[in-house]
Order: sequence, then structure tokens, then C-alpha cells
Amino acid sequence: MTRDLTSLFDPGSVAVVGASDDPAKYGHAVAAQALRAPGRRPVHLVNRRGGTVLGRPAATSLGEIGEPVDLVVISVPGTGFEAAVDDALACGAKAIVAITAGFAEAGPAGRARQRAVAERVRAAGAVLVGPNCLGIADNTTELYLASDRFAPGPVALLSQSGNLALELQLRGAPHGLGFSRFVSLGNQADVTLVDLVEDCARHEPTSVIAVYAEDFGDGRAFARAAAEAGKPVVLLTAGRGTASARSAQSHTGALTTSADVVAAACRDAGVELVRTPREMTVVLAALAGGRRTTGRRTAVLTDGGGHGAVAADAAEDAGLDVPELGAPAQDRLRSVLWEQSAVGNPVDLAGMGEQRPLSYADTVRELLAADEVDAVLMTGYFGGYAASEGGLGGGPAGGSLLAEGEQRAAKEIAGHLAATPKPLVVQSMYPESPSCRALAEAGVPVFDATEDAARALAALTGRAAGAPTGVAAPPPATTPLGDPSYHGVRALLTAAGVPFPAAREITDETELLAAAAAFEGPYVLKALHVLHKSDAGGVVLRLADRDALLAAYRQMHGRLGAPSYSVEAMADLSDGLELIVGVQRDPRFGPVAMVGLGGVLTETLRDVAFALAPVAAGSAEKLLRGLRTAALLDGVRGRPAVDVTAAAAVIARITEVAAAHPEIAELEVNPLLVRPDGSIALDARAVLG
Amino acid sequence: MTRDLTSLFDPGSVAVVGASDDPAKYGHAVAAQALRAPGRRPVHLVNRRGGTVLGRPAATSLGEIGEPVDLVVISVPGTGFEAAVDDALACGAKAIVAITAGFAEAGPAGRARQRAVAERVRAAGAVLVGPNCLGIADNTTELYLASDRFAPGPVALLSQSGNLALELQLRGAPHGLGFSRFVSLGNQADVTLVDLVEDCARHEPTSVIAVYAEDFGDGRAFARAAAEAGKPVVLLTAGRGTASARSAQSHTGALTTSADVVAAACRDAGVELVRTPREMTVVLAALAGGRRTTGRRTAVLTDGGGHGAVAADAAEDAGLDVPELGAPAQDRLRSVLWEQSAVGNPVDLAGMGEQRPLSYADTVRELLAADEVDAVLMTGYFGGYAASEGGLGGGPAGGSLLAEGEQRAAKEIAGHLAATPKPLVVQSMYPESPSCRALAEAGVPVFDATEDAARALAALTGRAAGAPTGVAAPPPATTPLGDPSYHGVRALLTAAGVPFPAAREITDETELLAAAAAFEGPYVLKALHVLHKSDAGGVVLRLADRDALLAAYRQMHGRLGAPSYSVEAMADLSDGLELIVGVQRDPRFGPVAMVGLGGVLTETLRDVAFALAPVAAGSAEKLLRGLRTAALLDGVRGRPAVDVTAAAAVIARITEVAAAHPEIAELEVNPLLVRPDGSIALDARAVLG
Repeated sequence: MTRDLTSLFDPGSVAVVGASDDPAKYGHAVAAQALRAPGRRPVHLVNRRGGTVLGRPAATSLGEIGEPVDLVVISVPGTGFEAAVDDALACGAKAIVAITAGFAEAGPAGRARQRAVAERVRAAGAVLVGPNCLGIADNTTELYLASDRFAPGPVALLSQSGNLALELQLRGAPHGLGFSRFVSLGNQADVTLVDLVEDCARHEPTSVIAVYAEDFGDGRAFARAAAEAGKPVVLLTAGRGTASARSAQSHTGALTTSADVVAAACRDAGVELVRTPREMTVVLAALAGGRRTTGRRTAVLTDGGGHGAVAADAAEDAGLDVPELGAPAQDRLRSVLWEQSAVGNPVDLAGMGEQRPLSYADTVRELLAADEVDAVLMTGYFGGYAASEGGLGGGPAGGSLLAEGEQRAAKEIAGHLAATPKPLVVQSMYPESPSCRALAEAGVPVFDATEDAARALAALTGRAAGAPTGVAAPPPATTPLGDPSYHGVRALLTAAGVPFPAAREITDETELLAAAAAFEGPYVLKALHVLHKSDAGGVVLRLADRDALLAAYRQMHGRLGAPSYSVEAMADLSDGLELIVGVQRDPRFGPVAMVGLGGVLTETLRDVAFALAPVAAGSAEKLLRGLRTAALLDGVRGRPAVDVTAAAAVIARITEVAAAHPEIAELEVNPLLVRPDGSIALDARAVLG
Repeated sequence: MTRDLTSLFDPGSVAVVGASDDPAKYGHAVAAQALRAPGRRPVHLVNRRGGTVLGRPAATSLGEIGEPVDLVVISVPGTGFEAAVDDALACGAKAIVAITAGFAEAGPAGRARQRAVAERVRAAGAVLVGPNCLGIADNTTELYLASDRFAPGPVALLSQSGNLALELQLRGAPHGLGFSRFVSLGNQADVTLVDLVEDCARHEPTSVIAVYAEDFGDGRAFARAAAEAGKPVVLLTAGRGTASARSAQSHTGALTTSADVVAAACRDAGVELVRTPREMTVVLAALAGGRRTTGRRTAVLTDGGGHGAVAADAAEDAGLDVPELGAPAQDRLRSVLWEQSAVGNPVDLAGMGEQRPLSYADTVRELLAADEVDAVLMTGYFGGYAASEGGLGGGPAGGSLLAEGEQRAAKEIAGHLAATPKPLVVQSMYPESPSCRALAEAGVPVFDATEDAARALAALTGRAAGAPTGVAAPPPATTPLGDPSYHGVRALLTAAGVPFPAAREITDETELLAAAAAFEGPYVLKALHVLHKSDAGGVVLRLADRDALLAAYRQMHGRLGAPSYSVEAMADLSDGLELIVGVQRDPRFGPVAMVGLGGVLTETLRDVAFALAPVAAGSAEKLLRGLRTAALLDGVRGRPAVDVTAAAAVIARITEVAAAHPEIAELEVNPLLVRPDGSIALDARAVLG
């Protein structure tokens, strides 16, 4: 099912249609880049006026080249776009990079145009990136078809914004961060973000996939591709706030998905979600080092108490733990440090580094060796003794003995790291110092800001939101729900194993009395086919016996005149908690489950959690345990704990049903009662899409 | 009451005791710095071995100098410290800067030593900074008595950490951020953070006061000094997490205050609280520009949709609003932009800047002119057209016409700003470009990271937590509470105007019946002098009449055998909400009030707010309205709204009582019932300190 993008990333020959000598035209920049590796593959320039471009003869058309072309870049005015595509396909092109703009981003007519083009391209067995893109580059195949130059390295960058890609490239430089590939996504008329993530997952020289996207296309497929990539995927996206959502919509015409859903998909898929280009760079710099750990117990090592305290706070803010070290580890630290040093964690050399720079290395060694430490964050002055030029400013003169000692310490730290898989991340006031550069060369991520070091470590030490659960494909659609009435939905859910109290739909007193005879009271009476039945007074609980039920029916029917009613056995509410479970269809991510605790306060707090549906029982339990009000599940003020496992199993079944019924736009069980001895659904409704 | 620090910051003469030629000694660095402005005032070097230091003759003692010395720096081993202080005072010193370490930070004996020294210094009418400090500097009086050199500028830096001060100095440089004064706080044995904030408030060349502190000393006085400084105070502190609190305690031996209390004090005092040196620098760079606004309606201007969306999210994350612009403003923007441009907010030039760089300036002008805009955040590529060398990396070649246009745009933007007090903050990929430098010279804060620009703007556009309320001095102590029993506390609060239901303390059935005759039922019966009386079954509500009360009494007395009981009129709980109000004495900040909604969920959520006590009624209402569960106050699911104003007035009275009784370590009213028609206290307790 995955698409072959060989002709896109490693074509046998390339033509740039719209190549130009005019530096104001994008065809100029692309042509100039394309010629950077002339020996690698034939590069043809096409300009309808012919003549020379960039000192080379230009063909007036693709046909004039006289030989097949594998990849064609099209950078011509919109009016000539379709003709250029046809020419390219006629020339045997297997890949097209469409720079030309004015399609879906300009309105429905443009969307129709690009759809038609994409169909022609696919029919010809070719692929197309764009339109409205800024080109592509592959440093591993010397393919340069974008105006920007990207330093080579392990990051594949797939971006819907040219300027943000440029910023990431500029930001990466001081970290020695390079790129394997760059793809400007454009309108994704044919080749999509998903195709590209899948291809980059197979691309051996790529070890990290970085994405900036506003429109995820098939978001579910993106999440699955990311979950199965076998390498880290980092996503920068906007749309958390009202203004950015407004902007993304006008910018790309994209259907927007709530930030909650995107965050849930990223958590499930193990995608590292970031908020800004700077945070993206920090995370990429950390991941490019290649070290990962599943633990988050962090030792903070500093040479000044202030830096240690600030870094400990930053680490905890980033979701790391900074536990006090145990007595054996403290004893070992004491054996290499002096009396003033603090060894609890943060570990503070307290001046010893200035006397004996190797104490930095000794301490790192002992911390890496400690069982209770998963990772080390070193922060403060290290680098300053040998700083000839500091990153934050000029370094101090520094005694040359200290400088030498510090550089030896850097070497020793690199040696200690080689003996362990645990990561070390460094914050230094002198990140450009020789000592810090030596650490960076040994694969240690070095930052000038404390919060960056903490964020980087968080990216290396397991996801802040817990282990990814993976992303299930929605199950195959089953027979559509014929009867979306209350009892129809109940029947559907009951068949799937969701427990409900006994109930019967009735339309008159005879049926009511038959129902009352069929099961024990107390009863519940609900009016059906009435909008917002609770608010309308269409639900009465705790009807002790047949007479009370009948009286309630007469009263309610006189008031509401509903076409039918439901008579139900009343569940035992004592010691129970009410949950709410809903599944909605997101236009991008498909069925998305929401779970929460019911009740007034929870409504007020909007204390709910999201996950891509279907949700496995184990994941559902994690969602419930992650609610802010989760303490209620374990019982407070003497109440017994409720059976969360049972509730989670029911939630799993509800989400499976919803996921298998694409015709259901919205399915809700509210309340789902969970008691110490089990869980039972008390009401349900569905909205067809 | 404020201390005269003239001899500290502008002494007539200076001596450095412990001046040395040995670069490993701190006395070397200080002496070298002290000599930087030889013409300003006499500088004497003292070394007990005499000879020459730094090429100048050194006195063997202060006495040998033969003339009075105004300020003495003491950088000698601990054993000689007291003698050096005595010599300094004998020489007529009015200020001492004590570098020598090994005092309070080393334990109780050291604390006693520094206290004795401070007393001697005060008795002599002098002031002492330190001990265990790294010196001071005042660029406005050419006084350099610390090893670091600080570029001149408007920021007074008061720091308990030398390395963090160094980092702030290094970080400030690229922003052109300079310092008026630097004081290393040390152990604050005599001159305190409060004294220094007060003096810097009076210091005309200082426009911003930056503080790094772990130990606030008299935190209340610090908050008051900051609130009354008349210039911004920015505080970097640690201790939010468990690890940093542990560290600060071991580092300074300081009593730690919960981060909630520090945050509340900062909010009340209008102190800008930051978490890292980088955030401090961003905020200082913004405040040094001098522009402030009270509004937070932000227009985001970009030249690329991605940057606009990311910046809009960052702005909302920072507490700013990014509202859609009104039709008139959008029309004006359309008149200067082209069709593709987005004018809703974010405003996106969408390529027009590349055609006509002056469109940046036109757009800034229109945005600054819009009534619905308080501030402008420009983000993206601006600076790139004229970037010969970029801050994030090399800039593009760029056509020279575009470069010129961009630089003209920068000038025009500076001109538009001159006509309005509204602030503009810029994020650019090319912060070091000539265009961005021109903006910076015009007072525009320019950053390379989106989140920095947003944070900076938040610092300029009113406090994230709302307007500061100011910091009251605790009221004068009144007659101590003689009887801390339940009825004693009730009497104290009742006298202060806190309403309670009618109640009588009783010890037998006769008194019980008399109480029942004195007021109407239903009744409440409480056992007194019983710990956790609710949990012990010592509270019974809803006793309908005299007989029920008597029966409950007999049952409870048989069970608990309490020495006395309280018979109370039962309040009407219908439509009421239970609040909790407490006041505790913080060792640093004095009486601190806590308010929250009561009940199970609120306990689980720890949904409480803090403020320095006493709390005015208006502030108490804001605290309540700021709770996460505040929606409950307005009524949910058809319940009526409760009388928040009445509750706030009662809270104000409770906090006044607590603040006027320093002998009360803890005072709690729980619950404070608030109903649609008023508020009444239902229980109270006090713990004497």
C-alpha cells in the first residue's frame, strides 16, 4: 500500500520547467540549486523563451530535450501549469514537484483543478509533490530542488511552511544539526504527509522525522505511520488557541481538529509534540544524539547552588523526577567530593570544580553508575574555565591549568558515557567553549538555557504523557445501525457486551404493567423521542413499585405526550460514580473517544481525556487514572474504591462499537455508572452523521 | 526607616583588605576591578604581607593607611574576619563588603558569628553587605568591587548567586542590556534584600530591579518594597519543586516558603516572577525599553502563515489575547495590503513584504492605530532581506533593493512607534540584521524565539495574574487571644463582625435545655475539646427539636465523654456552597490567607488560592472568582448564584483578625457557608504558635 517515491528522492534525471535568470523568480533559485551536483544526474533547464539560463542552454519545452526525464520541477505561472504537467507525463516523468501556486489555497475552483491534475498524474503511474510547494531536497542523493540549502544530517524535515523550515535550518546550525531530506508539503494534492512519513521511515540515513503541519490530511493514517516508523517523529503544529485555528483555516482552507485530539493522537502514536521552532530544535538536537531511556529519574549536577535549584525546577516542570539519592550513592559521591559539596540531588560541587575540574567527571561517573539515576543533567559554569569565546558572551581569562583540567574532564566524561546507555544533557553558560564542544562531539546535547536542557532530557527519557499505546486502524465498518432510537442504540451496545439494566420500551399502560411484571423494582421511567429528556422532566428515578410507576407514567404522559417510554430496572447508585463516555468522528482523525467523570464539578472543570478510538481496556484505565479528579476513583472520605477495570472494559466496548459504525457521528453513554463491584451503562444516545 | 546606603554605592574612598597578586584568590580580582576608575576616589590595597599588589604599594593593615576609609572590602580567611571588621570600623568605615565565607551557610555557629559582627557594625552606624558575598558594583558611580564586569545600563541586579548573575550578564549582552548596579547578596547579615530594593527604588538611573533570591529574609517587607518601588521588579527564584526546595535549604540554610505563597506575594506586589535566567533576560530586555500598556489585546503580524499561527498560540499561552480585528481595522489593512493577505489577526502579508518591504511598516502603522489593539507582535522573516549576517545563521543574499526597502521599513516603523505609547515586540530569524538592529535602537525588543517575544509582550501588557493589589503591612498586634477554644475563637471572630449562627457552650443536660429554649431549632450539636471532631462523630446536624437534641446529646456524651458541647442553631444549607478560609503564618511572608471551595472534589483538586493577609474584600472576591471551580459560584444546573460579595466581606474580616493576632499560627473557618442571600461561618478553630 505504501507508495514508491524513488523517482522523487533519487531520480535518474531532472528538468526544471520555469528555470530563469531573473533572481526574483523562484525558478531561478531552484535551477541554481539543481545544478549544485552536476555529475550526479542530468539536469535540464526549460524556459519557454529558450536561450541560456545560468550560463547553460535552456530548452524551450520538455519535448525539446529529446530524452525521457525522471523528475520534473514545475515553476511556471498558474495558467501554464496543466500543460506543463501533461508535457512532463508525456516525457515519461515519474515524479513532479509542483511549485506553482493558486490552487486549493485560493478556493474551491483551485481545489478542483489540483484534484484533476493529481488524478492524471496517478493514472500515469507518477507522483506529484505540491502544488504550492517550495521544492524538495535529499542530501543523501545530492538532489537539491529547493531554494534553501540544508546541512546534511539525520533529520528528515517535512514542512508545510517554507519560512519555518528556514528557521529550523538556521536554528539547527549551532547544534550541528543536519538534514537528510527536506520536503515542502504544499497542498498535498497527491503525495501526502503520510506517504512521506512512511518513506522516511524506510529511509536508512534518516534517524528522526520532523514535521510542521497545519493540515494533517488523513490524521489517523499520519498517527499510524508515525507510530510504526521505528524512529522518533517530532511534530510542530499550531491551532491550540482560537487565533491560530482561525489563521490555519484561512491559510490552508484546512478543516481544523481540536488541539486536544491532536495531542491525544500524538500521545498514542508516541509523537513528540512541540510548540515552537525553538522547542523543535531542542528536541531534534537531543534525539539526534541517539541515546534514549525509559526512566525519568534525573540527577542534577551543578557547580553553583542557584543553577542547581533552577535546573531542578525546570526538570520537574518538564515532567522529570529529581529524587533524593540513596545513602550508598551519596556515600560514593562524598568519596570524590569535598565537605561543602551537596550530594542529595541536586548535587552541587560547591566550588570543588574550581579547585579540581576533574571532579566534574568523577561526579558524572558516580551518577551514571547509580541505579536510581536514569539520566544526568549538568548545569552551570562548566566550559567557562576553558572558554576562549563563550556562546553567551566572552569567557573569563581562566588559569590555563584549570582550562586544561576542564578539557580533560570533558574527555573523561565522554569516556564514562561510552560505558553506559544513559543520557547526559548539559546546560552551560559557555556552550561554544572547547570543553562543551568536546562533549557535543561525543554526542552530548549541550544548550545555553536550563529549560532547553530539561526539555531535551524529557524528550530522551520517555514520553511526558506515558508510553505510547500505538494507533489502531479503525475496524472494518459493520452493518450500519438501522434504528438510532434509544432502544436501538441500547440493543447495538448490548450486543457488543455493554451491560445495561433490564428495560422495555412501552407505548401504553398495558405494556407498562407487563414490563413491571417482567422485572423487579425500583423502576426508572424515561420519555423517549423527547429532546433533552432530563431537562424536560422526562426522567423519573426511584419508583418503588408498580403503582408508583403507573402514577409517574400517567403524570409524565399527561405532561409530555411522548410517543413511547422506557421502563427500566433502577440500578443501585450507592457508592457509585458517574462516568461519561463519548465517541465523535473527527474529520481528520476519525473516531475519537472522550472519557470523564460526570457530575456538576467535573462539568465545570471540563475534566475529560481523549484518545483515538477504539480504545483498549488498558488504555481506557490509564485515561481514567489520568483525570485530574482521579482520586475520586479510589474513594475519598471513607467511600470505597470503584471497579475501574470493569469500567475500562465497558469503555473499550463502547469505543469499538462507535469505531465500527462510521455512520454514527456521535455515540454517548452518559452516565456510565461504576461501582465497587462493576460498571453498567444507564443511558445512551447516538447521532447519525 | 530606610537605610542610607550612600557610603556603600558612592563611597569617598575604598580599601580592599586581602588584595592579592595571586589570581587564584578572589582578593586579586576585586582589587583589579577596584582600580579600574583610579581618578574617581582613593583606592587602597591592604595585604598583611605588604609589598606591592598589582604594581601598587600595599598597606599591611587598614591602620597603616593613615587616613579614614569610607568603604572596606574584606576578602580574608575566616579566622581574620572579625579583626578586619574591627579595623575597618576603627578606620571610620561606613560600609563594609564582606567576601569572607563560612558563616550562616556553614551552620548555627557561623550564624551566631555573623549576627555578632552585624551588631557591631550597626552599633558603629555602618552597613555591611555579606558575608559570603561576591562584592558589589555601581556603574553610575564607577564603583567596581566584584570580579565580574557589568555593562552599564538601567538594571539593578541583586543576586544571591554569583554564577546566575554572571549568566544574566552574558545573556544581556546581545540585547544591549546593561546594569546600573550589581549586589551579591551573600548572607544578608546586615544589609538585606529589602534595604537594597528600597535604595534601588530611590536610585534614579535604575529603571528596573532584577532579583535572584533563595532566602527572602523578611519576605513581606520585600513584597512591600517591591510594590512601592515605582519601577518594575523582576524576581527569579527556585523552590517550586521538591528537589529545588531541598537544595535551597541545604544551600542557604533558609527557611523555605511554599511556591504558592511566593507567587501570591509577587502577584499582590506586581513583581514579575520568572523561572529561568533566560526568561529573566527576556523580561528585562522588554522592560528596559520602557513601554508598558495595561491591555493585552495583541495583533500578530507575520510574513508567513506558519509563523503567524505559532506566534498566536505562543501569545495565548503567555496570557495575551489575539482577538479577531473589527471590520474597520480589517478594511484599513486591506487598503495597504494585497488580496492574498490575511487581515483577521494574525495578519499575514502573504508574500507582499517580498514585493514591497514598506508594507511591513504600513501594516504596523495601521495596527498601532486600531483601537482594539494594545500591542503588536511582529514575527517571521523581517530582517532577512537586509541580513548580511544573521543571528540564527547566515542570511540570504537578498536583492539590494529589497534590503534597502526593509531598512526603510525599519525606520518608518520607528517613526510610527514614536507617535504612540503602544509597544511593538519583534521575533525575527535575523535578530542581528541591520533592520532588526535599527528597530532595537528605536527601543523595540527583538528576539529570535517566538515564545520569547510573547513572554516579553506579556511582561509589558499588564500582569498575567491581573493588576497588583498592593501589599498591606500586617496591622499592629492587638490583645492576644486568651481563650483558643472553639467558643473563644468564635467570640473573637464575632467581635470582628464575622456572622455565626446562635450557639451556646454547655456541659450538662440542664444547660443543654436552656440553650434549646434560647433559640429555635433545628439544632446542631458539636463535641468540644475533641480532636477532629467531625471524623470522631462529634458533630450531628439537623436535630429537629429539643427532644432530638437531648437524645443526640446523651448518645454522643456516652460515646465521647467530651468535657463540653456546643448547641447551635442549624443554618439553612439549601442553595449554599461551602467555602474554606484559612490564615497561616509563613516564616518569611507573615500571615497568608488561603481560600477555596469546600467539598470532596475541591479537596481532591486542591483548588485553593493564596494571598498575603489581611485581604481586602475586593481582592477576596477576585481570589474566589479565580478558582478553577469558580463557575459553581454563579450557579450550575439551575442552582441560583451565591452572594460572593458577602462571602468576600467575611473573608476580609477573618484575615484581618488573623493578621492582628501574631500569636495565632493558624486560623481556619471551615465551612464558611455562602448562600444566595449572604454568608455565615459554621465552624472555626485556631492554633496558637
